[in-house]
Amino acid sequence: MSNTIKRLAVLGSTGSIGQQTLEVVRALPHRFRIVGLAAGKNIALLSKQIDEFKQIFVYYQDKEAPTPLVNGDYQLLSLEEIASHPQVDTVVIATPGESGLSPTLAAARAGKTIALANKESLVMAGEIITKEARLNKAQILPIDSEHSAMWQCFLGENQKAAQLILTASGGPFLGYSSTRLEGVTAKQALKHPSWQMGKKVTIDSATLMNKGLEVIEAHWLFSMPFDNIKVLIHPQSIVHSMVEFIDGSVKAQLSCPDMRLPIQYALSYPERLPNSQLPRINWNTLNKLTFEQPDFDAFPCLKLAIEAGKKGGTYPAVLCAADEVAVELFLSQCIKFTDIAHLVKQALELHQNTSHPTLEDIRAADTWARQKVQDLVGAARC
Amino acid sequence: MSNTIKRLAVLGSTGSIGQQTLEVVRALPHRFRIVGLAAGKNIALLSKQIDEFKQIFVYYQDKEAPTPLVNGDYQLLSLEEIASHPQVDTVVIATPGESGLSPTLAAARAGKTIALANKESLVMAGEIITKEARLNKAQILPIDSEHSAMWQCFLGENQKAAQLILTASGGPFLGYSSTRLEGVTAKQALKHPSWQMGKKVTIDSATLMNKGLEVIEAHWLFSMPFDNIKVLIHPQSIVHSMVEFIDGSVKAQLSCPDMRLPIQYALSYPERLPNSQLPRINWNTLNKLTFEQPDFDAFPCLKLAIEAGKKGGTYPAVLCAADEVAVELFLSQCIKFTDIAHLVKQALELHQNTSHPTLEDIRAADTWARQKVQDLVGAARC
Repeated sequence: MSNTIKRLAVLGSTGSIGQQTLEVVRALPHRFRIVGLAAGKNIALLSKQIDEFKQIFVYYQDKEAPTPLVNGDYQLLSLEEIASHPQVDTVVIATPGESGLSPTLAAARAGKTIALANKESLVMAGEIITKEARLNKAQILPIDSEHSAMWQCFLGENQKAAQLILTASGGPFLGYSSTRLEGVTAKQALKHPSWQMGKKVTIDSATLMNKGLEVIEAHWLFSMPFDNIKVLIHPQSIVHSMVEFIDGSVKAQLSCPDMRLPIQYALSYPERLPNSQLPRINWNTLNKLTFEQPDFDAFPCLKLAIEAGKKGGTYPAVLCAADEVAVELFLSQCIKFTDIAHLVKQALELHQNTSHPTLEDIRAADTWARQKVQDLVGAARC
Repeated sequence: MSNTIKRLAVLGSTGSIGQQTLEVVRALPHRFRIVGLAAGKNIALLSKQIDEFKQIFVYYQDKEAPTPLVNGDYQLLSLEEIASHPQVDTVVIATPGESGLSPTLAAARAGKTIALANKESLVMAGEIITKEARLNKAQILPIDSEHSAMWQCFLGENQKAAQLILTASGGPFLGYSSTRLEGVTAKQALKHPSWQMGKKVTIDSATLMNKGLEVIEAHWLFSMPFDNIKVLIHPQSIVHSMVEFIDGSVKAQLSCPDMRLPIQYALSYPERLPNSQLPRINWNTLNKLTFEQPDFDAFPCLKLAIEAGKKGGTYPAVLCAADEVAVELFLSQCIKFTDIAHLVKQALELHQNTSHPTLEDIRAADTWARQKVQDLVGAARC
């Protein structure tokens, strides 16, 4: 057990995962120190964070905004510079969407410990990032609750597993038919039954796209063939995922649905730290855990994602980009909930794949898919 | 991954666990070889086993019986000689009750790997056996499904846990009131809803004494205070136990209720081996796992065992011995089901404890308790 203080950079510090990361750090100030913060456009909150954590490297995306107000002793750097800075031990990648790609790669090349909350990095560029991490001895530690669960189940096991079992809450529309889903609103979709998350991931949870992205992420994190990754609906969100080993033994990780636990574990690993702010399962009241098969017909995004993952190349980048734009259009009430899957499907069908893509190929596919979805919807619709 | 063949001695080879151990060995002949067998009185089956596995060390308890019929190349040795023989790598201790104590201790002193199915060894002499194992670098690997589950959850974790959560099927009388339990028969008690086991352990499962013994066993195996061991009823017998870590993360081990899995894992550790004969959980049909609190009033044996474990000394030996005699009396229809707990309680109340007992103290307590229960019941009753 070391008692050294880990120096953290939190990229995406004003988002949901970023803020919860800072909560963990506040609860365990003797173990973690914030040395880098990066935010998109929420300059007001970033400014407060700079004031609180002092002496840090800072990035903010919105160059139009006034410089953060505090007169702190901070230094403006790029995301990549922060992610690879010698004074940073662990980089928390909690930036949304494609923006996580470049700093994740920078951190991998710098051999950092990467606490990864951004799904898109591995989904879009899993081959490149895992290769760079391997070459440079960078550790990728998942923050997603499902991948954290599987990682915890793998601890001490020195063999490949037979199967990964990814659990999914099923989101707010569990049990809905395709027809009923046509009419659901953004407000309804944003009401997740068990998790507090950002808007994009909440909508992705409602379409099950989120689970599809997680299947691809799991494929890269655990070198597991897609056919050996099973998705299981578990509405209570207590079992965060499971691993089935070759002898038929299954290990599961359970906890209250609170992102601070997987965040803290990625930061504290290989240690576990007591934190009185983290909830414990109450075994006096928890009396049932249920499981059911996902409805691939009503939630086509799940299948689209798995198929894109299997095809590989630039398909997963198109999947992510098309989904991101489609979700924005849904949140702006330009399209129906069910149009998200339709648009992603069309973009994937129209895409010309590049196998073993470079980062440039991936970025080009991303740009192409964003434009394609906009074109498909047409300016007239919004 | 080594491909060496492990040489096994199976003590209690004609019992339920012993026979299932041999099934595992038959399924994986390239990994395990039987070099020792020991049985109590089932000479017919032992004889067949000797014929099948050849060239072995043999022990049998019933000296009155004719020598095993086969003209095999075997050598008659004592249990302790087999358990500590230089040609034995792993000793499977699957002898019933107090008879496991001495060979377990011999194996611990010889620094063997001990695959332990016999509960009484650790319950009666946990302090002595764990100390000898530590001194002689003997590994104690649990075969009980619950302890195997916790052990698997502990793999790769380098810190003490916050809590052990031992699951119990609840047995055939789950939900019965004390009054209703008065009238249950041995035939009913022997019908366990989820496990195929020997008679003694099946009755112990019906009284929940078995779970109480497992709490004491877990206390010694994982150095866990009794107050941090929780028992939870889980009728499906899929979650075999759980470990809660200091950060609130819980790991669980799940599998179909089949003892061959924990047996195989204790034999194959640190590897896992594929075995097509072992059942896999069918996630297409498993849709519910339920949990409830045990009823300490209707099943007083559970509380008696935990209290005996907490008091320590020779109390756990009295608990085991009194229970063994009481279960025999119940199976012979001499006493009622509910009398098992009454008799164990009386024996514990009448016992004069010895703290930090020697093996002789433990054996004396065992003998005293057996006689005491017989006296309490009285010759007239049977």
